[in-house]
Amino acid sequence: MAGADLPAVLISQPENRRYLSGYKAEDGSLTESSGHLLLTPDRALLLTDFRYQEEAAQEADGFQVRVYKQGLDKLLAELAAELNINRLGFEAEFLTFAAVKRLEKALEGVELTPLTDLATNLRLIKEPAEVEAVEASLALMEEVLERLISRLEDPGAKPLSEEAAAWRIVTWLKEKGAGIAFEPIVASGPNGAKPHAVPTDKKIVPGEPVVIDVGALLDGYRSDITRTIWLGPFSTKFKEVYAVVRRAQLAAMEGIRPGMSTVEADALAREVIREAGYGEFFGHSLGHGVGLATHEPPTVGPLKPSELKPGMVHTIEPGIYLPGWGGVRLEVMAQITGSGARILGGLGRFYEF
Amino acid sequence: MAGADLPAVLISQPENRRYLSGYKAEDGSLTESSGHLLLTPDRALLLTDFRYQEEAAQEADGFQVRVYKQGLDKLLAELAAELNINRLGFEAEFLTFAAVKRLEKALEGVELTPLTDLATNLRLIKEPAEVEAVEASLALMEEVLERLISRLEDPGAKPLSEEAAAWRIVTWLKEKGAGIAFEPIVASGPNGAKPHAVPTDKKIVPGEPVVIDVGALLDGYRSDITRTIWLGPFSTKFKEVYAVVRRAQLAAMEGIRPGMSTVEADALAREVIREAGYGEFFGHSLGHGVGLATHEPPTVGPLKPSELKPGMVHTIEPGIYLPGWGGVRLEVMAQITGSGARILGGLGRFYEF
Repeated sequence: MAGADLPAVLISQPENRRYLSGYKAEDGSLTESSGHLLLTPDRALLLTDFRYQEEAAQEADGFQVRVYKQGLDKLLAELAAELNINRLGFEAEFLTFAAVKRLEKALEGVELTPLTDLATNLRLIKEPAEVEAVEASLALMEEVLERLISRLEDPGAKPLSEEAAAWRIVTWLKEKGAGIAFEPIVASGPNGAKPHAVPTDKKIVPGEPVVIDVGALLDGYRSDITRTIWLGPFSTKFKEVYAVVRRAQLAAMEGIRPGMSTVEADALAREVIREAGYGEFFGHSLGHGVGLATHEPPTVGPLKPSELKPGMVHTIEPGIYLPGWGGVRLEVMAQITGSGARILGGLGRFYEF
Repeated sequence: MAGADLPAVLISQPENRRYLSGYKAEDGSLTESSGHLLLTPDRALLLTDFRYQEEAAQEADGFQVRVYKQGLDKLLAELAAELNINRLGFEAEFLTFAAVKRLEKALEGVELTPLTDLATNLRLIKEPAEVEAVEASLALMEEVLERLISRLEDPGAKPLSEEAAAWRIVTWLKEKGAGIAFEPIVASGPNGAKPHAVPTDKKIVPGEPVVIDVGALLDGYRSDITRTIWLGPFSTKFKEVYAVVRRAQLAAMEGIRPGMSTVEADALAREVIREAGYGEFFGHSLGHGVGLATHEPPTVGPLKPSELKPGMVHTIEPGIYLPGWGGVRLEVMAQITGSGARILGGLGRFYEF
């Protein structure tokens, strides 16, 4: 707020809300809010509706809870008068166009200022306790992923469908007291050519690549890792494609430095894939931040440069996707340190061809 | 589009997108789209990124898939030129303020027109096949809820925690090939005073109200029902509170008519609760539409009136929430017919005091 020179800001994005207040409720849908923070230099208010008032009071320590009965707009208009607010910052990347128009109408005389990633950027540099929380989430995820891979590799066990394998991830995390950060991706053979494939009833059988992309949710913090496995004797093509992706990943893991731009970091891996002739089959970014959200800044991709700084946590996940054949994606999580990228977690499960 | 008199509209809201195209992908978050439809009188395009191009082509029958590499804005600018689009409608209740500002910048010379619920309103009146899909989802949900209630009532079985009960809902639906429409609510004793309580490790024991609010997701369509149960001998207070909620629900079930406003429908139940002296403890709306989304129009509440019409499907769910004691909520789903409200599903599990 000091940076934005604003007398008041409205925080609506659920992870930002939680980060700043401790209030844990998720939003019911993309456009169904469970509350907003109103922050001024000397007041911290949590505005919510009837349904959430008890948990808001329990969880948001130091916040005064105000319940809106006729919508956010009316309550904000009352509070603007009560607290003499003449300018209000809002999260332009989160509030819908219609919501802002309603605010404009309700808050006559209050200047509304769109803010881009103000609060989200507060979450960019992880505090040590946050890195520990991410690592705890990751450790659990690695344990469960190792268990699944061992099960899939067991030659005596019945083949699992993609759906059944994904469900094991969900239940094994649950047994450990965790949830999922996102729906597990288990994509075998041609399905693996879809980077965001939804698991099907197709059985996982020898002789094809199997992309397994999973994440845990533990105490609010998330993890996100991918391994690609192959049952039975490797094909020449798999070895070739896999080796390119692995080389690309290692180039990034070893080359990333604080002070580097995200576009440069992305290029470390992208160049390896391009030089091997697979450039057009790596269509997504190299990585993304992970914390309270599965996807958060920084985006480590070819388009918008931003600076990598110590304390950021992001994925390194190059991939090659060949329609009709399948995909190979390898994903680790890393923390930017004073001198490079510290790889989080300890699961191997990489082939070195 | 004819109604809005627009040469082109952009559809971004995931359920609207699915309804109009068959493309099933969900969005990762509010700011992470898996695609947009661009509709003109003679063209149907699906715009998405690299990650989703395969499923988009498979699922969106009759749509031409175009992949954006540098974001939606650049591709839309190209298409506006290619298709001579000078006005474009967008979903104001879904696109963020910042996304609209980016579109304005990229689409110079194109007039952007905010649309309120244009496509969402197409989904208001359910086609017979949609009502069947909702009923199939509900039938499964009722079967699983009956199984859970029987388990909880079994005097020989070990008490379950709220979390364990909620997890049974998830796994039993999964066994039947279904997902959850939303995280199950199982809230016992004082936890039930939170209408949107998150299940805890508290054991479900005799002598307190237990609110169970659950929904299934089957083939894209959702259900949503609530029962409140009590183990052991009823207390006088429970019988009193429960009877009020049940009377309120029956008043709505029997009184709702097509042509009635949603505010009138809400008042049928709200008046019963108010007259019994519990008005301030029923702080949410009587109901909401259910279909591809768990919460969709119509909102049946005390604030914004709209007309109930044959073919709409919505919940009827009055409740009373007493801090420190708990809650009672009873929820059925209903379809508006030519003459009244047809209650969907067949699960009883109501106490008649």
